[in-house]
Amino acid sequence: MTFAFDNSPVWLDLLGVFFFAVSGSLLAARKHIDIVGSLLLASLVGLGGGVIRDIILNSGPPAAFTNPAYLVPPLVATALVYFLFPSVQRYTSLLTLFDAGGLALFCMTGTLKALAAGMNPVASVLLGVTTAVGGGLLRDITANEVPELFNPKDIYALPAFVGAAMTAGLWVLGVFNVLTATAIAAVVFTFRILAWRRSWQAPLAVHGWHRRGSNPAA
Amino acid sequence: MTFAFDNSPVWLDLLGVFFFAVSGSLLAARKHIDIVGSLLLASLVGLGGGVIRDIILNSGPPAAFTNPAYLVPPLVATALVYFLFPSVQRYTSLLTLFDAGGLALFCMTGTLKALAAGMNPVASVLLGVTTAVGGGLLRDITANEVPELFNPKDIYALPAFVGAAMTAGLWVLGVFNVLTATAIAAVVFTFRILAWRRSWQAPLAVHGWHRRGSNPAA
Amino acid sequence: MTFAFDNSPVWLDLLGVFFFAVSGSLLAARKHIDIVGSLLLASLVGLGGGVIRDIILNSGPPAAFTNPAYLVPPLVATALVYFLFPSVQRYTSLLTLFDAGGLALFCMTGTLKALAAGMNPVASVLLGVTTAVGGGLLRDITANEVPELFNPKDIYALPAFVGAAMTAGLWVLGVFNVLTATAIAAVVFTFRILAWRRSWQAPLAVHGWHRRGSNPAA
Repeated sequence: MTFAFDNSPVWLDLLGVFFFAVSGSLLAARKHIDIVGSLLLASLVGLGGGVIRDIILNSGPPAAFTNPAYLVPPLVATALVYFLFPSVQRYTSLLTLFDAGGLALFCMTGTLKALAAGMNPVASVLLGVTTAVGGGLLRDITANEVPELFNPKDIYALPAFVGAAMTAGLWVLGVFNVLTATAIAAVVFTFRILAWRRSWQAPLAVHGWHRRGSNPAA
Repeated sequence: MTFAFDNSPVWLDLLGVFFFAVSGSLLAARKHIDIVGSLLLASLVGLGGGVIRDIILNSGPPAAFTNPAYLVPPLVATALVYFLFPSVQRYTSLLTLFDAGGLALFCMTGTLKALAAGMNPVASVLLGVTTAVGGGLLRDITANEVPELFNPKDIYALPAFVGAAMTAGLWVLGVFNVLTATAIAAVVFTFRILAWRRSWQAPLAVHGWHRRGSNPAA
Repeated sequence: MTFAFDNSPVWLDLLGVFFFAVSGSLLAARKHIDIVGSLLLASLVGLGGGVIRDIILNSGPPAAFTNPAYLVPPLVATALVYFLFPSVQRYTSLLTLFDAGGLALFCMTGTLKALAAGMNPVASVLLGVTTAVGGGLLRDITANEVPELFNPKDIYALPAFVGAAMTAGLWVLGVFNVLTATAIAAVVFTFRILAWRRSWQAPLAVHGWHRRGSNPAA
């Protein structure tokens, strides 16, 4: 019961698109954007990372534009948020959970698609991380928020990097399959959610500032 | 007196570039940016949507970089705003009118160029909308404004979608010509301007929030 | 002792990446972003301009993704800022100096790579300017700052334009070599730093507003 993972399966990509699209529609809801804007933000977040990935791979138009199936997840996400959100209480938790799900899948699909296109493992990991964080970065920039990616209060990019590196490593060793993929997704998702719930923090960009807890700069 | 529209005519694209470029220079004027920044913002808005379109089509460098004619509209727009703006009273109206003109033309040229490149009609409509809203989105993001695209107080993307869908439909039916193109541009422009003047609103991203007029979220 | 400049030498590009990467890490430090965000911002600023350039040239995946050497400058920049920054006093000066260094090199490498790819000189100058200002624009947009590019208090894009035009001119005349390249870099760097130190200002986007020093718009 093996699965042909080495060609970056479309269904895995579509599931990641859906997770990110929901996070986009939830942000639209919180910002009181209308339903057209909700669909646009869902599309931008869900498809943005993959479009950046495919543009960088430079092998024809991005999948999101050639395969109409990619339009379904944003439509479903927008409709779900429209009809179900009023009964949901914990908005921020939900956005973070779906975003973490997208992160866990896209760091794999980005890396796999790069490896399948013949990129070296280092470049593939880089493209995997770019794919995973790209959509969320576009979401936060467009909605005029400070990107979650640069929030020093928790850890966002590191789980994506770990997932991309594990994907490339297992792929090179020839043991990337449906079981190890599930394990990677679980590791990335758990890492991200734990980092968020427990407010894990990386050291600040400057040595010695973190412990003092003050800002010595003018 | 038919016109070879199916190859996405350059003059139509250039006219759209000019309209968007004027909107960029007008925003630069309102934000007290200098004339170099005005030219840059005019270029970014005027050329941005088409560059994104051409990058996604992935068939050689974008037209804006290979055809020097594309540099003329931003230069003219910057000069016009520089010399004529002090005598203009209603700044916001003017920006919205020029932006609507660009929207009306770019939703057609984007769709046509995608169809001419062999994309399916659904993908072509998607690329048409992306082309039409891309430049304005870049303008607002760069100038650190909340994008007009996500303003729930009026309707922006829907006219572009209608125009792109009409373009693809008429093209598939083989009746896209200079007359029907003029009609589409008129429909899109009128729809957008009416939506703005009369503050037409789409439903909010969440069902039931709109009528209450309040914010139940924390 | 001539140098093969006409193929856009990698070491010159890497040096520009390093300068811009330092500016990214310095901004991360000032904004109290953590070290992972510092590395990401260094990569985005250092590699962003070149990735945009290579995507527009549309000749295979961007160099930053195919040549692992491009990953070294952001890593070095992040480490340098992490260990050395607390002892540095004048933060803003340092960021502007490194940014000016990147600007001086990227306006050349962008133009050269475009010329080497067969673009006409006008388009090459445009791409050179885009390469030079692209990374810094991404840095400021991502960090939610008003882009330095549009700051009317000094001059940013004009030095890059001068450098790109000189590069294209000397290349067409066949006298672009290591000596003239050094001269161009010196001119661009000096122009930019003088404009910043002495607050040189270009005229505002609208004729007649500058001298009055007031805002006649509503």
